[in-house]
Formats: sequence, structure tokens, C-alpha cells
Amino acid sequence: MTERPDQSPITSPRSERVRTVAALAGRSARRKLSRFRIEGPQAVRSLLRDRPDLALELFVTARAAADHPELADLAGAASVPVHEVEDRILRAMVRESGDGGEAPDGAGALVSPQGVLAVGTLPAPDPSLALTAVRDLPSLQPVMVLVLHEVRDPGNVGTLIRTADAAGADLVVLTRTSADPYGPKAVRASVGSLFHLPVLTGADGSEMLAALADADITAAATSGYAQAELFTADLPERIAWILGNEARGLDRATLDAAPLSVRIPLAGRAESLNVHTAATVCLFESLRRRQAGA
Amino acid sequence: MTERPDQSPITSPRSERVRTVAALAGRSARRKLSRFRIEGPQAVRSLLRDRPDLALELFVTARAAADHPELADLAGAASVPVHEVEDRILRAMVRESGDGGEAPDGAGALVSPQGVLAVGTLPAPDPSLALTAVRDLPSLQPVMVLVLHEVRDPGNVGTLIRTADAAGADLVVLTRTSADPYGPKAVRASVGSLFHLPVLTGADGSEMLAALADADITAAATSGYAQAELFTADLPERIAWILGNEARGLDRATLDAAPLSVRIPLAGRAESLNVHTAATVCLFESLRRRQAGA
Repeated sequence: MTERPDQSPITSPRSERVRTVAALAGRSARRKLSRFRIEGPQAVRSLLRDRPDLALELFVTARAAADHPELADLAGAASVPVHEVEDRILRAMVRESGDGGEAPDGAGALVSPQGVLAVGTLPAPDPSLALTAVRDLPSLQPVMVLVLHEVRDPGNVGTLIRTADAAGADLVVLTRTSADPYGPKAVRASVGSLFHLPVLTGADGSEMLAALADADITAAATSGYAQAELFTADLPERIAWILGNEARGLDRATLDAAPLSVRIPLAGRAESLNVHTAATVCLFESLRRRQAGA
Repeated sequence: MTERPDQSPITSPRSERVRTVAALAGRSARRKLSRFRIEGPQAVRSLLRDRPDLALELFVTARAAADHPELADLAGAASVPVHEVEDRILRAMVRESGDGGEAPDGAGALVSPQGVLAVGTLPAPDPSLALTAVRDLPSLQPVMVLVLHEVRDPGNVGTLIRTADAAGADLVVLTRTSADPYGPKAVRASVGSLFHLPVLTGADGSEMLAALADADITAAATSGYAQAELFTADLPERIAWILGNEARGLDRATLDAAPLSVRIPLAGRAESLNVHTAATVCLFESLRRRQAGA
């Protein structure tokens, strides 16, 4: 992929440009090329409207261009080139790459791009940027952060970003061992929320805890062994909910380092909640308190 | 599959018995044979402990039998025959069937059975049984029901059952156009909760609404256009949360027929919640109120 998007028409599904876009299903190709791709009118609209600075180029079929004229308008306003391509070209762009690289980390190969695809600049996973984002949060007012530590499933990561957005979170931070939110499956699950609020990747877990404490934001973990129960606990207005790995939960060190730990009540016979359910209950309890206090 | 489980050892992954178990990944084979299958020690333990009446036979590797001795004990207590098989036999049982039938409705083919598999009797999808289950709920005390109407994704159905269990729901009802909770992907996502509380399938939507009203249980829908907001609405102690299709939500007729409709507050810029997130917020708000009132 050249620095300046190539303006020549794409006519072969086996062309280098098509294969380069297809390869972006893989995390290593995204990192190497500093690019990600997204598919479908809703995600592309969110990118162009909310993060035009990240958008590099758009590929649309004639049909989709007619159905979604606002996409060309948004692209024009952001000076993002739009390439009209045949449907078979788009479908080849979301097919598994033939370069022998890693398998795509989502079901991108099975999903129709619905006539629209965009390529964007991948925000670098950078621990210092994540720390800066925490420091730059407004002081002396309610703040809600979601920290994902070792959350490995791309679908979970995308859905968690969507739920954090819905609950009014100000920031989502992923530690470096979490799934990439810019993978096809995570992007799809986030339904545009990836571009609605700052999502920082590559953070270091213990550095993040220190930065939160410096910013007077209380890191809150969930644990089945915690004394305090979520619905009756004293929840700070400046809070960072920290969720851990799907199978193992939070590691002991992080759990010990978090200044607050709460237990989500389980009334039935389920032994646990999955990470997304736990996050939903915590984030919306914070939202409920915020609304009740306002 | 014979009525009485065959006791002869299984030595070929291509045998009829293996292929019959493999075919249970498909909904039509489950219905035709009135059987379902589950995999992994946790699901099998829940089946044997909580619904031994449904269990028909167990297949385990020597390794898994040694690692999980409680499974043979539970099976013995329930008079469920245990067959020791080689790992390659078990793996063939979760492979896509070669009979040209429908594709499995889950990712069963990709997941290891972890050395344990059980076959059980499929509870028949029966609208009248679903109505009876509602009528049989205790009267004059708090009741929480989850109704899934046209929820089509097996993973969502399983996760919703798990979350309903965790929130203390008394019953889950699925209308006939919802995904089958006994499919491999739904069973896995339910993590045993499928056997913790009554899960009734095949219900008719409007009959169900009438039965709920007769039982003095308020059917509550969620809608972005509702006047009442979840966190401040008057929520009855006898409540049935009704969740709709992943893409379309609840159909207009069901929404109009539900006596209560609430809006889940969205604080950020997400346009909507997915069905599982919405159910989680509603079910746990009911649990919170119940605990606060107790």
C-alpha cells in the first residue's frame, strides 16, 4: 500500500491492492501496514463522521453509492478518495488473504461488505498514549472509564466498546494482551462505537492503574469474593471498571492493586457471568447512580 | 438411535452410532430423533446433577473419566450408562455429520469436547407446555420471567439463559421462531444454566402474553420510544421481560400488546444496545429492586 492512495481503477480481484486490503483481516498485517479496514455502511458512516482523520480511502459499488449518497458527501468533506468498484472486487477484499499469512481474526470472510469498505490509519498501540488519554480526562467531574485487561475475544472487545459507549463512558483502554479492536469481528461488534469515544490500545496494566490513581479515578474490579456488593457499594463518581480475561478473570496482581472490588449479586444458580454481562451490569449501575444523583 | 442405548463398544469413527450423535448438531435431526447432545465436563455435570431425567447416555475418554470421577458417580446415581471411548471417537461425534443434512447450527465442529459428551432427551417444543409453566409459577410473590421472541442467534439464546439464571429468573420461554437452546452453540453459551431453570420452547407469542396477564405477571418490553425510563419506572415485582429479534427488535404487534414498555437510557452515542445487553440491564435492574425492597 502506497502512502498516497492509488487512483487507478481496480479491475482484478487478484490484484495487489485487493490482496493488501484482504490481508488487513490479520493483526500482523494491520500493524505492519498501519492500516485497518471496515465494512458496511453503518461502520463507514461512523468513521467518516466521527473520525475522518483516520479515514484513508473508500471502496463502494455503484449500487451502494446510490443507496447511501451521504457516504460520498462525508468522504468529500473529509477529502477521502472514493473508488467505485464491482461487487466481486469488494468481496475479494474481505476474503482471506492468499499470502500464507495468519488467518483472519474474525468471520470477515463470511460476511458481506454490503457494498462499502473503508481503509483507515491504524492508531498505534502505545502505552504512553493510553496514559496521556487518562491524564487528559476532565478533572473534578464524573468520569467513567472501561479498562479491558487480557480480554481476548474480538467479538467481546467490540461489544464491550459498544456497551461502554451506550453507558456514557468517556474512554476505553485495552491492555496490550487484549484483542485488537480494529480486527474485522471487533469492528462489526462495536457497530460504530469504536469511533464514538476514545479507544486506546497497548496499555500496560500496572502503569494504567497508577495513572488512574494519579487522576483521582478509582479503579474498580469485580470479584465473586468481594465484601462490597455492587448495588449497595459506595461507587465513586470518577470510576474505571476493570474487566479481565474471559476464562480466568482478572489476574491476582491486578485484583490486589485495584482500590475497589465489588461483587455482582448472583441470585440464581449460574456460577459466574461472562465478561460482557459483568461489564454491562457495572457500567449501567454507574450510569443509574449518575442519573439518580443529577 | 435405538430406544435402549446400545452397550456394545464403539470402535470406528464412521460407525452409525457416531454419525447419529454427530447429526445432533442439526436442529432437524434433534427434532426427528428427539435427542440433543452436550459436550464438556461442566455442561455434562449440570445435566446429570440438575436434569438427570433428561440424560440418556454418556461418552467419556479414559483420561476424562480419571480427571472427573464425579461424572461417573452422578451418572451411576441417575442410572445413565457410561461408555468409555477413544478421543478420536468423541471428536468424530462433534464433527459435522456426513449425511448431507443441514449444517450444524453452532461451531461444534471446531470445539473440543474435552473428553466428555452426553446425549439427552430433547424436551419437545410445545406451546401448551410453555403456557402451563407460566400458570404453574408461584402466585402472590415476586416472579421474574424472560421471554425471547424471534431471537435467532444460538449464542445469544445461550448467553441470555445464563444471564437470566444469574439474575434469579424463574423461567425462560422461547417463542417458536427463536433459535433452539439445545443446539451446540447455545448449550455452550449457557454454561449449564440451560439445566438450572425451566427453559420452555415453541411458545406462541400472543398466547404467551395472554397467559402472563392471566397469571398477573406484567409483560415488559423495551423500546427507544417509551416514555418511562427503566431506572425510574414503576417495575412490578411480577414481571416478564420480553426481548425481540437481534436486527429488528420486537415486532409492532407484540410491542403494542405488552402492558409495560420502558426505555433503557443511552448516555453516549451508541444508537442501540444488542439484545443481550438490553436483557442484562433489565433483568439486573429487577434484581436490584428486589434486593432493595427485601
